Amino acid sequence: MKEVRVDTPGGRYPIRIAPGRLDHLADAVPADATTLVLVTNPTVAALYADRAEAALAKSGKKVLRIELPDGEAYKDWQTLNLIFDGMLAQHCDRRAVIVALGGGVIGDIAGFAAAVYMRGIRFIQVPTTLLSQVDSSVGGKTAVNHPIGKNMIGAFYQPLAVEIDTDVLNTLAPREVSAGLAEVIKYGAILDADFFAWCEDNVVALRALEPAAVAHAIARSCELKAFVVSQDERETGLRAILNFGHTFAHAIEAGLGFGTWLHGEAVGCGMVQAAELSVTATGLPQREADRIRALVQAIGCPIYGPDLGTARWLDYMQGDKKTEAGQIRFVLLPRMGEAVRTPAPEDQVRQALELTVAKTAGAQATVVA
Amino acid sequence: MKEVRVDTPGGRYPIRIAPGRLDHLADAVPADATTLVLVTNPTVAALYADRAEAALAKSGKKVLRIELPDGEAYKDWQTLNLIFDGMLAQHCDRRAVIVALGGGVIGDIAGFAAAVYMRGIRFIQVPTTLLSQVDSSVGGKTAVNHPIGKNMIGAFYQPLAVEIDTDVLNTLAPREVSAGLAEVIKYGAILDADFFAWCEDNVVALRALEPAAVAHAIARSCELKAFVVSQDERETGLRAILNFGHTFAHAIEAGLGFGTWLHGEAVGCGMVQAAELSVTATGLPQREADRIRALVQAIGCPIYGPDLGTARWLDYMQGDKKTEAGQIRFVLLPRMGEAVRTPAPEDQVRQALELTVAKTAGAQATVVA
Repeated sequence: MKEVRVDTPGGRYPIRIAPGRLDHLADAVPADATTLVLVTNPTVAALYADRAEAALAKSGKKVLRIELPDGEAYKDWQTLNLIFDGMLAQHCDRRAVIVALGGGVIGDIAGFAAAVYMRGIRFIQVPTTLLSQVDSSVGGKTAVNHPIGKNMIGAFYQPLAVEIDTDVLNTLAPREVSAGLAEVIKYGAILDADFFAWCEDNVVALRALEPAAVAHAIARSCELKAFVVSQDERETGLRAILNFGHTFAHAIEAGLGFGTWLHGEAVGCGMVQAAELSVTATGLPQREADRIRALVQAIGCPIYGPDLGTARWLDYMQGDKKTEAGQIRFVLLPRMGEAVRTPAPEDQVRQALELTVAKTAGAQATVVA
Repeated sequence: MKEVRVDTPGGRYPIRIAPGRLDHLADAVPADATTLVLVTNPTVAALYADRAEAALAKSGKKVLRIELPDGEAYKDWQTLNLIFDGMLAQHCDRRAVIVALGGGVIGDIAGFAAAVYMRGIRFIQVPTTLLSQVDSSVGGKTAVNHPIGKNMIGAFYQPLAVEIDTDVLNTLAPREVSAGLAEVIKYGAILDADFFAWCEDNVVALRALEPAAVAHAIARSCELKAFVVSQDERETGLRAILNFGHTFAHAIEAGLGFGTWLHGEAVGCGMVQAAELSVTATGLPQREADRIRALVQAIGCPIYGPDLGTARWLDYMQGDKKTEAGQIRFVLLPRMGEAVRTPAPEDQVRQALELTVAKTAGAQATVVA
């Protein structure tokens, strides 16, 4: 078993990574817990909820299962309230512990529910997608969407533990593997050029979910994210670099409607766009932007953004919560493995959009060798 | 000007108490604020919003006013969302600062909005009722109600500052003054027997809002609350004693529908009930319970609970979030000025209800000399 430690002002906790962790969830249950609230969705539940419930029951605690409708489109107030309704109907008290079993949407909603139920109860993350294993389950960001923007309402709230079972990746659709790999290569691009090169060398093994390659990719991603989050829990500085590609990605998701593209797909494309902007704005060599485009394509993510019209692109990027005083702050690369947070001149943004937005519907399809 | 300091892990901030503070709100505005979001309701707005807005504008910042419907009945998700809608429509970023101008409902909703908007922005409390000046604006509890229970969804989130203008009390209805005084005498009952005796001696001056008496009562209440909150921000121990009377009060509010009684009225009555339970459960001398009943009556609050039926009383108290492992934990008094948190045998609870619940509708009316 690999273990990565996260240490923030809001809490210290372990990320445990191993095949079969799902059967050992009782290890993470605190002795004074009352009810364990297993929050999941029907898709994940059909595959893993019975096993998770049996594992949790080994702690001797009562388990309450709450299934939420599946998908980013349901990451909202109404769905969040289903958790509160279920818990209050069962008289769950402040010692109830929420266990989030699912991908990023489940983790974000269930984590936010834990942050605000009776002003905060404990929770455990059990991420079941590659994306959530390397990204959203680590670092304590929780949220729901608002019609005007993604993740607008939320909290920084750290889990008790993150339990990652690498076996569950075998039931993912290839598209979800690609989306997860987008976040993996992001860590290389912004923090670790050697890891980026390792991803280039191992892209076939990663897409095939070869166990050793996947375990290394997850652990290294979590280490890099934990390093950043430990220094800046509340995103006042360094942490913002984790948003590389995300300003463009948010525009894609808001413009097409949340859930049309997977979040990781939008991030993959957004990184290609941010790399192109980096060439003009922060002096990234064109060959490095080309490496990013090639690797995003190789992992199976789109490399052209949808044709929203430049005005809408700019408006959605403006509305993203990473603006300050109305100015868009991009995360850009001066070189591979290093990121900076900076505004960019609008003409350069327009030019990057010109280069990276699909002019025909067909251009969004990607073909991978 | 009187100033009380609050110091918690979640933040250090001043409570400033003076006549005319409303005209000096710019003092509390941080230099890097972008938009100031003045959250209020039509009732308060008609009296004070223009002055508050003018005072805030002296900081040179843009002011956005958001008016919420007035009343405890609107302390819910839907109303909370009006704040998010208004702020997102105006592209408010993470440096926006919320200014809560109103009573406890406005403070709780606006504070919770600040806690979760873009995962947390800064806010300033400007409480305009006596109850909120001595209670809800101090200590960082924010929340909205759920149909199943009051304040079930919320956060511990500290303001930048609390600005208390004692002049605004002159526009309060007498009933609201009484409700606020219930919390004032609560601090005496649980923490400071001398202050309780001072309240007995000055009850006429307090109800008449004599400036010196009111300023002392507010400052002493804030000091006592700040003392407790500084030691236990997240209510894991000591802080729970601030809930003296509240388990009964929550049952009253939930049973009659939130907003039928003012929160302070329910707390006043709840203290009489908790004092009666204290006689049997923790050995409070009957004469001290009688003093509490007499003072609650003298400040103009009800001293008999509504006839919900014993089963509903118990069920509502059970559903309150101050239960743990299904057992109701009461705050009771072993003697005047000292509180403990303890379960109580059900037969003693039933007996206390028997003694303190009105058997006719008329008994709820109180007459004060």
